[in-house]
Amino acid sequence: MHAISFIQDLAVIMLIAGMVTILCHRFKQPVVLGYIIAGFIIGPHTPPFALIHDEDTIKTLAELGVIFLMFCLGLEFSLRKLFQVGATAFIAAFLEIALMIWIGYQIGQFFAWSNMDSLFLGAILAISSTTIIVKALGDLKMKQERFAQLIFGVLIVEDILGIGIIALLSGIAVSGAVETGEVFATVGKLSLFMIVALVIGILLVPRLLAYVAQFESNEMLLITVLGLCFGFSLLVVKLEYSMVLGAFLIGAIMAESRQLEQIERLVEPVRDLFSAIFFVAIGLLIDPAVLVEYAWPIALITLAVILGKVISCGTGAFLAGNDGRTSLRVGMGLSQIGEFSFIIAALGVTLQVTSEFLYPVAVAVSALTTLSTPYLIRAADPLALRLAGWMPDNLARVFGLYGDWLRSIQPQGQSALLMGMIRKILLQIGVNLALVVAIFLASAWFAESLAGYLQPWIAQGNLQKALIWGGALLLSLPFLIAAYRKLKALAMLLAELGVRPEQAGRHTLRVRRAIAELIPLLSLAGILVLLMGLSASILPTIELLVVIGVLAAGLIALLWRWFIRVHTRMQVALMETLEQGSQHNGH
Amino acid sequence: MHAISFIQDLAVIMLIAGMVTILCHRFKQPVVLGYIIAGFIIGPHTPPFALIHDEDTIKTLAELGVIFLMFCLGLEFSLRKLFQVGATAFIAAFLEIALMIWIGYQIGQFFAWSNMDSLFLGAILAISSTTIIVKALGDLKMKQERFAQLIFGVLIVEDILGIGIIALLSGIAVSGAVETGEVFATVGKLSLFMIVALVIGILLVPRLLAYVAQFESNEMLLITVLGLCFGFSLLVVKLEYSMVLGAFLIGAIMAESRQLEQIERLVEPVRDLFSAIFFVAIGLLIDPAVLVEYAWPIALITLAVILGKVISCGTGAFLAGNDGRTSLRVGMGLSQIGEFSFIIAALGVTLQVTSEFLYPVAVAVSALTTLSTPYLIRAADPLALRLAGWMPDNLARVFGLYGDWLRSIQPQGQSALLMGMIRKILLQIGVNLALVVAIFLASAWFAESLAGYLQPWIAQGNLQKALIWGGALLLSLPFLIAAYRKLKALAMLLAELGVRPEQAGRHTLRVRRAIAELIPLLSLAGILVLLMGLSASILPTIELLVVIGVLAAGLIALLWRWFIRVHTRMQVALMETLEQGSQHNGH
Repeated sequence: MHAISFIQDLAVIMLIAGMVTILCHRFKQPVVLGYIIAGFIIGPHTPPFALIHDEDTIKTLAELGVIFLMFCLGLEFSLRKLFQVGATAFIAAFLEIALMIWIGYQIGQFFAWSNMDSLFLGAILAISSTTIIVKALGDLKMKQERFAQLIFGVLIVEDILGIGIIALLSGIAVSGAVETGEVFATVGKLSLFMIVALVIGILLVPRLLAYVAQFESNEMLLITVLGLCFGFSLLVVKLEYSMVLGAFLIGAIMAESRQLEQIERLVEPVRDLFSAIFFVAIGLLIDPAVLVEYAWPIALITLAVILGKVISCGTGAFLAGNDGRTSLRVGMGLSQIGEFSFIIAALGVTLQVTSEFLYPVAVAVSALTTLSTPYLIRAADPLALRLAGWMPDNLARVFGLYGDWLRSIQPQGQSALLMGMIRKILLQIGVNLALVVAIFLASAWFAESLAGYLQPWIAQGNLQKALIWGGALLLSLPFLIAAYRKLKALAMLLAELGVRPEQAGRHTLRVRRAIAELIPLLSLAGILVLLMGLSASILPTIELLVVIGVLAAGLIALLWRWFIRVHTRMQVALMETLEQGSQHNGH
Repeated sequence: MHAISFIQDLAVIMLIAGMVTILCHRFKQPVVLGYIIAGFIIGPHTPPFALIHDEDTIKTLAELGVIFLMFCLGLEFSLRKLFQVGATAFIAAFLEIALMIWIGYQIGQFFAWSNMDSLFLGAILAISSTTIIVKALGDLKMKQERFAQLIFGVLIVEDILGIGIIALLSGIAVSGAVETGEVFATVGKLSLFMIVALVIGILLVPRLLAYVAQFESNEMLLITVLGLCFGFSLLVVKLEYSMVLGAFLIGAIMAESRQLEQIERLVEPVRDLFSAIFFVAIGLLIDPAVLVEYAWPIALITLAVILGKVISCGTGAFLAGNDGRTSLRVGMGLSQIGEFSFIIAALGVTLQVTSEFLYPVAVAVSALTTLSTPYLIRAADPLALRLAGWMPDNLARVFGLYGDWLRSIQPQGQSALLMGMIRKILLQIGVNLALVVAIFLASAWFAESLAGYLQPWIAQGNLQKALIWGGALLLSLPFLIAAYRKLKALAMLLAELGVRPEQAGRHTLRVRRAIAELIPLLSLAGILVLLMGLSASILPTIELLVVIGVLAAGLIALLWRWFIRVHTRMQVALMETLEQGSQHNGH
C-alpha cells in the first residue's frame, strides 16, 4: 500500500530526526544541523540501507517546507522594520552580496566548473542564515546587544535581495545568459510586481483575515491563511516568478495584519513539520563519496565564506559609521550560509542547470560554517582588541577621523526633517507611478482576451484598443493625479530650497513658481511617453489618442475632487493597516 | 513539475474550503460539512472541470488526516475519563452499536447488497460523530447540561468500541467470514494488545516527553510527538492492526503526560490542515449520479440512523436510570454519523471488499443527519412533553416504578465501598495477567529468531525451548506474584463476605482460611495451564519443565521480597503518571 510506505518514511524521518536533534541540543548545535545529519543517516549513501521508500513524495513535502520557511520569514519581515533599518544594514548587505557572488564565481572558475555552476555557487554563498544566527545569538545570550540588532537589520535587507537573486537566477537559467539589459528589466519588473502586490495585498488581505478571525475558529483562520499562501504562491508561479517569492511576499503582507501573532502560532507547527522534512531531504542528498572527492573545494569555499563575509560585512558596518569592534562582531556573526543557500541550490537542481555535486558541496559548507559560527562570535571581541593593539597609530587615527567626518555630514535638525519629507514624497510618487505602470502592463497583457470579449460589440481593432487603453488611463487617473500633486509639492519644496533670494533677486517668486509648475508637468509628460512605450501593443491611432486625451481632460476637470477623494480613501486604508499592524504587534 | 501541480491542488483545496467553510459558518453548519461540499465542488463529477491533478498525493495526505484525527481523539480521551463514565454510557453505547449494526445489515440485505457491503453498512451506522455533536451542542450553548455530559460519556465508550469494530472488520475482511470463535480470539488479542501497549506506553512515553520538554523547544517536542505517533502507528500496522488503532492508542498514552496541553496546541494546526484534506478528499468521491441512483437507500438509511439511534440510545439511557426527558435528549443528540463512518467506509475501499457506491452513500447519510442534528436536539424537549402527555397513566407508573427499583438495587454505603474495592482488585489482577500472557505470546512469537541466536551456544532444540520458556517465566514472575497476592486479598474478602458464622458455625475461621488459600492457588494453576496452552510451540519436555519449575520455586523463595519491590516500583511509577497527568490537565 502506497500510504503505509509513506507513513513509514515519515515515521523514520521523525524518529531519527527527533533523536539526532536531542543529541544536537545536548552539544549546543542548532536543530537544523541535526535534521541534516538525520537525513544523512537515513539516506541511500550510508549503511545499513536506504530507509526511505517513497523519495518522490518526501521531496514534494520538502517543497512545502521551503514554502513554509519563506512564508514564516515573510511573517517575521515587516515593511516598517525595513524602513527603520539603518544605512549600516544596506551598505553591509550590498557589499556582502556583491563580494560573495564575485568570490563564488571566481572559485567556480578556478576549479573549471561551468559558468552556471560558478554563478550559482556565488549566489549560494551570498546570503547568511537567519535560523543559525538567531540560534547562535540566543545560545550566547547576545540577542539584545547592539551588534545583534545590526545583524538582524542586515538579514532583513538580505532577505529582500535574496528574493531578487532567486528571481534573477531563474531568468538567467532559462535564457542561459547574463545580459545587463535583461538584468535591469528583470529587476525592474520584479520591483514593480512586489510594490503592486504589497499595495493591493495590504489593502485586501488584513481585512479578509480580520473578517475570518471574528468567527474565533483557529481552524478556519488556518485554512484561510494556507489558502492565501498557496494561492498567492501559485499566482506568482503563473507569472513566472519563483514560488519562494510568492510565499515570502504573502507572508510580508500578512505581517501587517492584526492577527499576526495568532497566525504565527498556528503556522509554526506546520512549518516545523515541513521544514524538518525539507532539511532531512537535504541530508538525504549527501553522498560521502562526493564530499571526499570535493574535499578541497569544500575547504576553500568554507574559508572564503568566513573570510569574505567577515571582511565585506565588517567593512560595510564600519563604512556606515560603526566602531571597529562592533563591525567585526557584525562580520563574524554573519559568516555562514544556510537555508537560503539550500533553496538556491535546489533551484539549480530543479531548473537542471547545475551539476550534481553543487548541492552536497553547499550542504557541507553550510554545516562547517554553522559549526564555526558560535566560536567566531565569541572570538570577535578578543580579536578586535588584538587588532587594535597591532594597528599602527596613524591608521587608527585615520579610522577615527573617518568616523568623525561621517557624523559631521549626517543631516541634522531642520535639514534632517526636510530630507525625511522629501524621501517620503518620493516614496509616495514611486508607489503611485508603479501602480500606474502596472495597470498599463496588465492591460497590455490581457489585451487579447479583453479584445475577444469586446469583439461582439465593437468589431474594429483600433476602437477596441482605444477602449482598452482608455480604460487603463481611467483606472490610472487617481494615481496619476496623486503623483502629479506629490510632484508639485516636491517641486515647490525644491524650488524653495534651490532658488534663493540672494541669487534670483526680485525674480525669486516667479522663478520658484515656474519651477514648481514645470517640473510636475514635464515629469507627467515623460511618464505618459513611458506608458505609451510600455503599452505599445495596445496603442490606438493618434486620432483616437487625441479623443481619449480630450475625454480624460474633461473627466479630470469634472471629477478632480472625486479622484482625489478616492485616492485619499485608499491611502488612508493602507496607512491604517500598516499602523494598526505595527501597533498591535508592538514593533 | 510535479511539485507545482501538487501546490496547485493544495491551493485549490484550501481556497475553496476556506470560502465554503465561511459560508457554512454563516449558516451555522459545522466546518466538516463545508469541507465535504468544497470537495464535491472541486471534484471530478461536477462542472466546470476536475480541479485536482494529483489525486494520489492528496489521498496519501488524507490518510495522514485520518491518523491525526484519531491521534487527537486519543489525546482528548483519557483512561480516567473512561473509568468515571457511568453505567448509562456503557449500556447506551452497547445497545446503540448492536442495534445499528443489525439494522444496517438488514437494510443491506433488503436491497440485496453483498454480505460484506451489508456488514460494513452496519458498522458505518454504528458510531456517532463527536465532531458534529460538539459543534451542535456548542452552537446551542448546551455543552454544560447533564444530558450533554451523558452524551460525551457515550462517545468515549463508542470510541473504544469503534476501534474494536475496525480491528474486527479488518480481520473479517481478510478471512472473508464471520466466525464466533475468531471474533472472540480477535477481541481477546486486541484487548491484550491494548492493555500491554497502554501499560508500557504510560510507563515510558510521558517520561520521554517530559525529558524533551525540558529543552523548551516547541519544534523538538512536536517532532518527537510526531515521531512517536507515526512510529507507533507503524508498529501497530506491522502487528496487522489498523493504523487508526495505533494513532488512537498513542494519543491516549500521551493524554497521560504532563505536556498534554502543549502537545494539543502544537498538533492542532497540523491536524486541522490534514483533516481538512481528508474531508475534502471525501467530497471528491461524491458522484451526483450515484446519489440519484441510490436516493431510496439513502433516504431509508437516514431515517434508520435517526430512529435507530434515538431509540437505542434513549432506551439505553432510560434503562440506566435516567428520566424520560434526559433519555430522549441523549438519543436525539447522538442521532448522526460522521468521521468514524468515513474511516470505516475508507477501510472497506482500501481492503477492496465493499462496492463503490457505499462510500458516497455513507457521506450523503452523514451530511443529511448532520443537518438534522441541531433541529433534533432542539425538538427533544417539546417531544418529551408531548410524549408524556400521550402516555397512558399505567405505563407512566410502570416507568416510574422501574426508576425506583433501579435506585433501590444500587449498592450504597459500605457495600458500595466493597464493590469498589473488588472492582479495583479485579482490574489489577487483569492487568498483571494480561502482561504475563503478553510476555509468553511474545516469546512464542520471537522463539524462532531467539533460537537462532542461541544456536551457536546451545545446539539442542529442547534446551533452547527450555531457556526461552524459562526466560519468559522469569520475566513474568513479578506480575505472577502480584496477581497471586491480589487474588489472595480478593479470596479473603470473598471468604469474609461469603462464609457467615451463622452458616458455618465454629468452622467459620477454618473454612474462610481454606477458601482464602485455595482460590488463589487454583487460579494460579489454571493460569499456568493456560500459559502452557498459549506457548505450546515453545514448550519443552516435561522433565525440563519440572527443572524450570523447581528453579522458579527456588528463585521465588529467595527473591520474594525483591520481586514484590520491583513490581511495586513499576506500579507506583504508573499510578504517579496517571495522577500527575490528571492533576495537571485538570480532569
